[in-house]
Amino acid sequence: MQTAVPLLREIERLPQPYLLFLGDIVEPAYAKTAFGLRDWARERCIGEFACHGGTVSAGLAPMTPAQARAAGARSLVIGVANPGGRIPDSWLPSLLQALEAGLDLVGGMHARLGGIAALSGAATRFGRRLIDLREPPRDIPVASGAKRSGKRLLTMGTDCALGKKYTALALARAFAARGIDADFRATGQTGILIAGGGIPMDAVVSDFAAGAAEMLSPDAAADHWDVIEGQGSLFHPAYAGVSLALLHGSQPDVVVVCHQPGRERVLGHPGFALPGIEETIALALQLGSRTNPAIRCAGVSLNTSHLDEADALRLLANESERLGCAVADPMRGGAAFEQLVEDCLV
Amino acid sequence: MQTAVPLLREIERLPQPYLLFLGDIVEPAYAKTAFGLRDWARERCIGEFACHGGTVSAGLAPMTPAQARAAGARSLVIGVANPGGRIPDSWLPSLLQALEAGLDLVGGMHARLGGIAALSGAATRFGRRLIDLREPPRDIPVASGAKRSGKRLLTMGTDCALGKKYTALALARAFAARGIDADFRATGQTGILIAGGGIPMDAVVSDFAAGAAEMLSPDAAADHWDVIEGQGSLFHPAYAGVSLALLHGSQPDVVVVCHQPGRERVLGHPGFALPGIEETIALALQLGSRTNPAIRCAGVSLNTSHLDEADALRLLANESERLGCAVADPMRGGAAFEQLVEDCLV
Repeated sequence: MQTAVPLLREIERLPQPYLLFLGDIVEPAYAKTAFGLRDWARERCIGEFACHGGTVSAGLAPMTPAQARAAGARSLVIGVANPGGRIPDSWLPSLLQALEAGLDLVGGMHARLGGIAALSGAATRFGRRLIDLREPPRDIPVASGAKRSGKRLLTMGTDCALGKKYTALALARAFAARGIDADFRATGQTGILIAGGGIPMDAVVSDFAAGAAEMLSPDAAADHWDVIEGQGSLFHPAYAGVSLALLHGSQPDVVVVCHQPGRERVLGHPGFALPGIEETIALALQLGSRTNPAIRCAGVSLNTSHLDEADALRLLANESERLGCAVADPMRGGAAFEQLVEDCLV
Repeated sequence: MQTAVPLLREIERLPQPYLLFLGDIVEPAYAKTAFGLRDWARERCIGEFACHGGTVSAGLAPMTPAQARAAGARSLVIGVANPGGRIPDSWLPSLLQALEAGLDLVGGMHARLGGIAALSGAATRFGRRLIDLREPPRDIPVASGAKRSGKRLLTMGTDCALGKKYTALALARAFAARGIDADFRATGQTGILIAGGGIPMDAVVSDFAAGAAEMLSPDAAADHWDVIEGQGSLFHPAYAGVSLALLHGSQPDVVVVCHQPGRERVLGHPGFALPGIEETIALALQLGSRTNPAIRCAGVSLNTSHLDEADALRLLANESERLGCAVADPMRGGAAFEQLVEDCLV
């Protein structure tokens, strides 16, 4: 975990380093984006800034927007989400202060920064940008299906929200630690903040979704790896189409299937049983072979955060035995994760 | 072919009947939309209108916008596409004349009607609407996956542009001719004009694509059929995600697989072999069973427009024998098509 996550190079990069904005929240659970940035993109974060009344910290140096700007910051990133995804009026003085100090604003909430008149007026006045992470790039092409140079890995899940982003980040970091030229390719808002760029797949018009995936991981050197953040699941009743478009457009050489042991129903869709790991591997290879006949599964990533260490290690070993492939929890690292990394790179 | 195509009821309906606009084109190939409307929605078309210099006719009564309005027309529909999908300046006087006469304008071209200042100004002045068919409805929900009442049929293809819309239209018409309460559900621009409403699936943001399909075919009476126009193909390198979202959201009880004999490569993607019919049926049932475990394939629709009658009938019989199911060309009708209709309804 020593090396930084490799940068995204070709897709438009966010203005950085960031000053993390923590609002006036008092509940750490609402600061997941800030914590993710601290854990995965510490080198992009110059400090943190909270409104009066806020009690949550990401453990970075507290500073005002003017101090952060003087220290090199280029943008203030909204690192918290309050219930409802709105930007409360109590945040506006702080956000205006950041614009005046010369920082762009970056947000990934449902409420668009550009839709708040006070902010758009101030941004124009100070010559600053309001960047909404839910806006995909313009002029995404229809996918060509043409083979691209370089190597690609895609994390795929049995469901949403069980570790596809963290697995991709951990693998990209481990690849880089071995001296391999690798990029983490972000497809969701938190991932985009961590990578400094990317494409919000959930916001792309469906006819262009596979094209967006092609655009996200362009031609590269033969020994270069793109490690692509997966989205949804091929079995998801609402999002399977997004997952398939991402699979087809990514043309992965390698997939790593992510699962949370014990989860039995699709999150938010209790009428749907979660697919098995074997079933998920089989469907990923069956459908992925359409655009990359050489696709293979290198192993499985399990989110064992709810288990103690001994139980987790026993489960990983048993599952590896049962499935006949590397099975690791990237957040625990260790020999199992080393094996998974090895098996991705063979 | 006596009965009208059943109406789409719940999705916002287009202002109709239509006056078909033929522009100043001299090449019939550019009038496909007008011809499709004439063939499938004759009862929605009150007449046709061309600019000076235009030589193409759809065979309807020629009339001015004012005459059409007096005869009951509610909108002028752009029924032609010139190369590039642009609206040439030479059309503007005619379009302005229609607005002034009290007709809304409906277009499905790349160029948005609302993006042309002369038209948007006149529309405001005359209190008329400019309707771009590429605009999906607002507030499409994320798919729930919940089972809906009523029966559903989805046409699915081995590729794009080989008869999914015409097959769905012909089946909906045949169902209605048997006294069955059925709706044709349109998912593309020409289909939407024919049905008088629908959702342009290609314009829906990918996270909501399955939700759009759910919205398009809502709960209905137990013996009601929605006959849904398919899009793309599950094997298409650019559009498979759209096809899968439409399949999951439609929850079809019955699929009919559409193919054009002799087509061997994916249209516009010559690096990809077309999948076989059996393979397409198998994947449709495999993936479709996620949201409707009772899904079945009722038969196959072949586009034999390039064959003479004797060759076509021989091919249909041979393919029916080989595949062990009904195989028909809906445009030829006959006993084979009757069999396909029967097998959809059993």
